[in-house]
Amino acid sequence: MKTKEFDYLLRSGVSTKKNITTRENDFPQWYQDVISAADLAENGPSKGSMIIKPYGYAIWQNIQSELDKRIRSAGVPNLYFPLFIPESLLKKEENHIEGFAPEVAVVTHAGGKELEEKLIVRPTSETIMYDSFSRWIQSYRDLPLLTNQWNNVVRWELRPRLFLRSTEFLWQEGHTAHASANEADEFAKLALGIYQQVAEDVMAISVLAGEKSEAERFAGAHKTYTLEPMMQDGKALQFATSHNLGDNFAKAFDIYYSDENGEQKPVWQTSWGMSTRSIGGLIMTHSDDKGLVLPPNLAPLKVVITTVGGVNKDVESAANDIAEELDQPTLVDDRDISTGEKLYGWEKRGVPIRVEIGPRDIESKQAILVIRDTGEKKTVEITDIKSTVVEELESMQSRLLDKSKNLRESNTVKCSTEEEAVEAIKANKFAEVSFDVTAELEDKLKKIHGITVRCTPFSNPDVTVLAKAY
Amino acid sequence: MKTKEFDYLLRSGVSTKKNITTRENDFPQWYQDVISAADLAENGPSKGSMIIKPYGYAIWQNIQSELDKRIRSAGVPNLYFPLFIPESLLKKEENHIEGFAPEVAVVTHAGGKELEEKLIVRPTSETIMYDSFSRWIQSYRDLPLLTNQWNNVVRWELRPRLFLRSTEFLWQEGHTAHASANEADEFAKLALGIYQQVAEDVMAISVLAGEKSEAERFAGAHKTYTLEPMMQDGKALQFATSHNLGDNFAKAFDIYYSDENGEQKPVWQTSWGMSTRSIGGLIMTHSDDKGLVLPPNLAPLKVVITTVGGVNKDVESAANDIAEELDQPTLVDDRDISTGEKLYGWEKRGVPIRVEIGPRDIESKQAILVIRDTGEKKTVEITDIKSTVVEELESMQSRLLDKSKNLRESNTVKCSTEEEAVEAIKANKFAEVSFDVTAELEDKLKKIHGITVRCTPFSNPDVTVLAKAY
Repeated sequence: MKTKEFDYLLRSGVSTKKNITTRENDFPQWYQDVISAADLAENGPSKGSMIIKPYGYAIWQNIQSELDKRIRSAGVPNLYFPLFIPESLLKKEENHIEGFAPEVAVVTHAGGKELEEKLIVRPTSETIMYDSFSRWIQSYRDLPLLTNQWNNVVRWELRPRLFLRSTEFLWQEGHTAHASANEADEFAKLALGIYQQVAEDVMAISVLAGEKSEAERFAGAHKTYTLEPMMQDGKALQFATSHNLGDNFAKAFDIYYSDENGEQKPVWQTSWGMSTRSIGGLIMTHSDDKGLVLPPNLAPLKVVITTVGGVNKDVESAANDIAEELDQPTLVDDRDISTGEKLYGWEKRGVPIRVEIGPRDIESKQAILVIRDTGEKKTVEITDIKSTVVEELESMQSRLLDKSKNLRESNTVKCSTEEEAVEAIKANKFAEVSFDVTAELEDKLKKIHGITVRCTPFSNPDVTVLAKAY
Repeated sequence: MKTKEFDYLLRSGVSTKKNITTRENDFPQWYQDVISAADLAENGPSKGSMIIKPYGYAIWQNIQSELDKRIRSAGVPNLYFPLFIPESLLKKEENHIEGFAPEVAVVTHAGGKELEEKLIVRPTSETIMYDSFSRWIQSYRDLPLLTNQWNNVVRWELRPRLFLRSTEFLWQEGHTAHASANEADEFAKLALGIYQQVAEDVMAISVLAGEKSEAERFAGAHKTYTLEPMMQDGKALQFATSHNLGDNFAKAFDIYYSDENGEQKPVWQTSWGMSTRSIGGLIMTHSDDKGLVLPPNLAPLKVVITTVGGVNKDVESAANDIAEELDQPTLVDDRDISTGEKLYGWEKRGVPIRVEIGPRDIESKQAILVIRDTGEKKTVEITDIKSTVVEELESMQSRLLDKSKNLRESNTVKCSTEEEAVEAIKANKFAEVSFDVTAELEDKLKKIHGITVRCTPFSNPDVTVLAKAY
């Protein structure tokens, strides 16, 4: 269907202007170039801050909507806690404050006066939420307490990069409290399962799911579960995490419930988050040297119809007719600019299917479909476009997921010694090691080689996967 | 349809616990009581902050979704600008900084260090956005630039009240730039029209639309348009506003474009916002002495089916069958608690329709429908419930809008002298005055009587409407 929603893309020439470095030549520069060519985001005025531009935000809004739907269906309602955390609350859980203290932004003045107590701009909301949980939870009848919130958080970054690390980012943070340790652990895994669905079914990103090492755990957590896809340069990206918090926070925040027998017991908690960082993972999974590639299930705009051969009322009208007939969000680009400008422009934006139509096509009642990921061109009867578009979007979606899965699987190497692992990782691979990775070894690998433990996979708890990571 | 989404309401006993003051007895206390009885929100740990609880947030999320859909359909895409505004940017437009300086919160330290330049937590985003607009807009081909963002803003409040005034609130802020003064003015009115649709068609709040006086304008605006519904105590509430910013900000932020002839011209801008404050207006428009009343088009949960007469498998099963069959979000309350607890609990939550079913109803193949706003009870054949629910929801929606419209219209008094106007407003009415309200008179009325100019209505530009307001 035709939508006015993407008309702004016709007014912006940005996407046609920028050349893109190849991945082979300079992967980090390629990443920046793809973002800039697709006009997804740019740096904000204060150091490390990010402006998410309309096309980038449309991608985020689709991720949000897919996640939100699944979280609510799991019986977890949304709520909203304040941005500012009184300093005294943030300090209540020892490991937590130790982890976050170096990264926080502090409000000292407000309403024209110096504040009596400093306010911390939330880096995450455990401490402010659990202060309320201690009042909200009294009896076993109040459990499980299931909550989620969509918000912005601030963590001061010294080496910012668009989407991957910025001083402020957008995310959802889920927080739950349960009567038993086991129920909490299962819920933490359920949340990770929701992330895996969104990663694989929507974003076409194949992920390795597993448990983090002690050193890589969330500050204050009992266990941290993670999704670790492989980027095209062989590095891992922490896509989303879910934490079994044990009763650490319950004890620090005095969250006790009386059970069926009137006995006071601490609750068992989880927290879990997925952020705008996932867009960084999306880019580094699918995009190519021509620009952004978006999986159809996530793409805000699924089809663009470009007219070629100059201004022609009949062509414009045919293009609009096709757009009206399609069931997908579709834009007609009938601007009077060169064919090349249109072609490269939409390629850089990563629109899954481009339909090209000109005066000769109308005569022959045909149009050309161009598939973004393969670059394949197909001549299709105009009457068949609707069904062909559906098929092509579906096959592109599964092709991208397969490609992501193959990349990781064919670049994961079983290693039985430290040396083998280091060598494999230097060759841009994941090392799956069968030997015990002690805390000492982990520390050494990180300091000397920049190698980190990604996880112990759920699918094979006898091994540890090591890699370099974003 | 049955949904797991509202199961949390069955675990929370809060809504049955709280007694509600009558409106006549103490309107402000009644307002607080309704919020607390429906468990919509509570005070946060730092002064003036607000925790929006799940049921309150579900209302906000529905408002968001209705607004977002309309804004995007109007061709305005969403984007996201940083939370922190460098102090130097905030100061660029004179009237703007003068208006907001006393209300801002200031970050002075981050990442363990004192910042070189203070960062202001956004009270609104004109200044940070327009700094970018000056780079994004070069030519007439870049116009109109249409943008919107959903975010949180901070304005320090000395007399906070839940939803109405809190140090942090949630909203959307639209910002557009146009080639002509006239186009900008039309767009500001178009945005106000979107708010009016959501107010009337979704929230069943009848609004008076018009233009603000100079004294009541947004800081830095050329003209401010507003929607002013009447609350049940006869006061006005500023529901949403839209500003024609003229070229004030364009000149302060150097936003010039070259027109078709290569001439440099300033752009003409608009900004417009609607916030969680609208929930305060919703409550004071529809709710009654029994608690919250929600218009069906906005209510997160439209139907609740309560079983009566103790635990009974057949009744539970009949209740679940009815729930499955309905097209509206429906919850089954088969808890083993007293009928009274269920009745008062859902009344306080403002669920539009309650279906009551017990053992005798099953035998007679009937159930009782209870309509929230009128309190009417209807015995309905079980096979007719689905169609009756649809009809009752529709008629409740239009009944609430009519009631809101009648309240304002029958309590608006035409006045030809200052004395008449003051008297009418003291009797909890809107005064529609035909005499000229000079800036001196406006100032005097505000200082002596707490009376403000609400607007010059679009429907009758020869009069001015005065009232007390939230």
